[in-house]
Amino acid sequence: MPEATRTDLYEVTMAMAYLDHGLTGEATFSLFARSLPPERGFLVAAGLESVLDMLERYHVDAHDAAVLAHALHRPAGDLAGLRGTRFTGSVRAVPEGRIVLANEPLLEVTAPLPQAQLVESMLLNRVSHQTAVASKAARCVIAAAGRPVVDFSLRRTHGAEAADQAARLGALVGFAATSNVEAAHRYDLPATGTMAHSFIEAFEDERAAFRAFAASHPGPLTFLVDTYDTESGTRHAADVLRETGRTAGAAIRLDSGDLGDLAVRARRILDGAGLPHVAIVASGGLDEYAIDALVGRGAPIDIYAVGTKVGVSADAPYLDTAYKLVSYRGRPTMKLSTGKTTLPGPHQSWRRPRYADVTATLDEPAPPDGEPLMETVMRNGRRTGPRPSQAASHRRFARDFAMLPAAARRIRGPVAPGARLSPALESLVDEVRERLVSRQRGA
Amino acid sequence: MPEATRTDLYEVTMAMAYLDHGLTGEATFSLFARSLPPERGFLVAAGLESVLDMLERYHVDAHDAAVLAHALHRPAGDLAGLRGTRFTGSVRAVPEGRIVLANEPLLEVTAPLPQAQLVESMLLNRVSHQTAVASKAARCVIAAAGRPVVDFSLRRTHGAEAADQAARLGALVGFAATSNVEAAHRYDLPATGTMAHSFIEAFEDERAAFRAFAASHPGPLTFLVDTYDTESGTRHAADVLRETGRTAGAAIRLDSGDLGDLAVRARRILDGAGLPHVAIVASGGLDEYAIDALVGRGAPIDIYAVGTKVGVSADAPYLDTAYKLVSYRGRPTMKLSTGKTTLPGPHQSWRRPRYADVTATLDEPAPPDGEPLMETVMRNGRRTGPRPSQAASHRRFARDFAMLPAAARRIRGPVAPGARLSPALESLVDEVRERLVSRQRGA
Repeated sequence: MPEATRTDLYEVTMAMAYLDHGLTGEATFSLFARSLPPERGFLVAAGLESVLDMLERYHVDAHDAAVLAHALHRPAGDLAGLRGTRFTGSVRAVPEGRIVLANEPLLEVTAPLPQAQLVESMLLNRVSHQTAVASKAARCVIAAAGRPVVDFSLRRTHGAEAADQAARLGALVGFAATSNVEAAHRYDLPATGTMAHSFIEAFEDERAAFRAFAASHPGPLTFLVDTYDTESGTRHAADVLRETGRTAGAAIRLDSGDLGDLAVRARRILDGAGLPHVAIVASGGLDEYAIDALVGRGAPIDIYAVGTKVGVSADAPYLDTAYKLVSYRGRPTMKLSTGKTTLPGPHQSWRRPRYADVTATLDEPAPPDGEPLMETVMRNGRRTGPRPSQAASHRRFARDFAMLPAAARRIRGPVAPGARLSPALESLVDEVRERLVSRQRGA
Repeated sequence: MPEATRTDLYEVTMAMAYLDHGLTGEATFSLFARSLPPERGFLVAAGLESVLDMLERYHVDAHDAAVLAHALHRPAGDLAGLRGTRFTGSVRAVPEGRIVLANEPLLEVTAPLPQAQLVESMLLNRVSHQTAVASKAARCVIAAAGRPVVDFSLRRTHGAEAADQAARLGALVGFAATSNVEAAHRYDLPATGTMAHSFIEAFEDERAAFRAFAASHPGPLTFLVDTYDTESGTRHAADVLRETGRTAGAAIRLDSGDLGDLAVRARRILDGAGLPHVAIVASGGLDEYAIDALVGRGAPIDIYAVGTKVGVSADAPYLDTAYKLVSYRGRPTMKLSTGKTTLPGPHQSWRRPRYADVTATLDEPAPPDGEPLMETVMRNGRRTGPRPSQAASHRRFARDFAMLPAAARRIRGPVAPGARLSPALESLVDEVRERLVSRQRGA
């Protein structure tokens, strides 16, 4: 596993300079989203388990050191100080599935400065990507208003690894199944899927294709009906379902055209054929906006399959995250760059009723009605407990989600609750800013 | 390598039904982009080498068969027909780096129907993702108008695999370097990067940080100057560059604020300090739109570093690609779904002067001024030649790019050339449509 080389080069140049200058004291870095993307009222924390896996495996072996030296045009010996490095620090983090807001840390790493720096790139990568996708997926669940949502994103995510995560994160927020078999296997999720247009086209006609499929597969059938014409396809599907008697758990799938209108027509055909229990699945470029519009129109769609736009979080494919040094050897630090000011010191965020959250310094007492968002999940480079099950993470999500204000759940124009800073954290910000500004002036 | 299980489940259900019904004849599938995303005047073909790697490794082993059976709730014996399957077909494709248009096939697979179907999901995934990112990166090169562009996207791509591709695809279209060490190692690219804000913050003051960095690193220096205040940071950088005499190849980096304005101020400070050769690097949320605006304003920025928005192709994170059955046992097929009509039969696309491309049936003679876009890259499941070098793929891109009409290169409001259909392909479309419509009516 190339944990040590899949890094931005500057993490390595910095770590080398820290070692040269004895800056190996304990540092705390805070990873947080500076702001929410447009049309997001909340974020679903995700990526932590990938981060912890990475930190447990982290090791600069001889090969890694040679690769790093080559990238730097330095002799291998110059990397001697980094060779053998493992991650020996601790991590406090918001568990996967919890709902977080802008400026609430997602995780904080405390470790000797070079270590905490070296792992930055992949920490940001994992948390940013997975939190963005989980948050998008959660909005699809909201839009579907109780109807099952399934993941069909494999074909257009950014690689295979991203596809597996899309499937896993869908399940985290309540998706019913995934089309991705490998992800279903890895994460113990239900797999779903039946046929594509090519299957229909490979047979002489649509009914022959449906009959052949039914003959090969004893389980519940879903017939894709829009290869040539959705209404005649639905009639052909009804014919074959009736003639084979395979109506239990059966469905048809619509994948093109005006899905709301076609669902009404297909429903009428199915009901007319005495098949009121045959479900209608819709797919084809769906996301929370499209689902919301279909549900709003009363479209008789029973299951929504989402793919591309959710797997890549198309309207917000990245988060504005940062991983910032907030303390070195007990001294709080912050950055003053325009628009990028950070909060000094290690933190705790407190979930309060109606998401009136407070971000505080780590050593403040708990507010009377507050519940801590961050937990210690790693100590001395090892997880403090077993990896949470997919079900446990989903329960975490469901519990936070149940309390989320309606305005934050809106599909269009959501209003995100904002975390306040505690008075002690506000004072610390002012104090550190003053110290830095006067030092810069003096310097 | 889970090649056989990282698939949409329906590829497997279809393949099982094909085997049951003797549909194992030769099929051709065509993979193409139905349309270009907004603000794209062309696409850069990419993903082919990942596809060929995958096809060469493809093998349904006993473990894979068990995973597939489990996903289907079927006994393992039911998957016996698929066990041992390898990909034995051929692939014709547009080599990586070539410029392609909507409705020009990116690749066509010809293989026994079950095989050609089973590999669909990951073919679409690789080609869609990589073509989207390569096309975005090419636009950054255009915007930078000759100035070097470097890749800083690792921290916010969709996983590590996507990060490595972003680095590789940047190089394909002419990026000068990447911050991603693992990708630099894998693809033999120059690595780049020096320091982050945390480095500055870890020292007592900015000059101490710059001095410490210079002492640790004998190569060319790039000092990040915006941690506290860009102008004083630039002065501190100038001081340390002069006192150490390390001005050869040196640069400063701006990462926040109004980059155009700050570059002017920083340039003035550097010039005033007798450092006219110290370069200015800009980073921080840049993409082709921002670079174009900065270049248009005459900002004295020498190197552009792009990250997040390019690594995820933020304004167009997916392509509207399809993988469609176009022929089965020599019979051309097509799909009539609303808005999703496909072109029947195997194809060749011809690049003609001024991108007046023609997509034709495979057996038509070459137009007198046409050059074929698709080449046979795999036969009997093996590559027909060695993997092209990164340099060769870049030369392919550069050659096509040099001929691209100016309107297609525009950063805002580009006009994409459109491929015409040959008269023979138009006739075939009409003929197959008629056959299918009359068969559906008759059925």
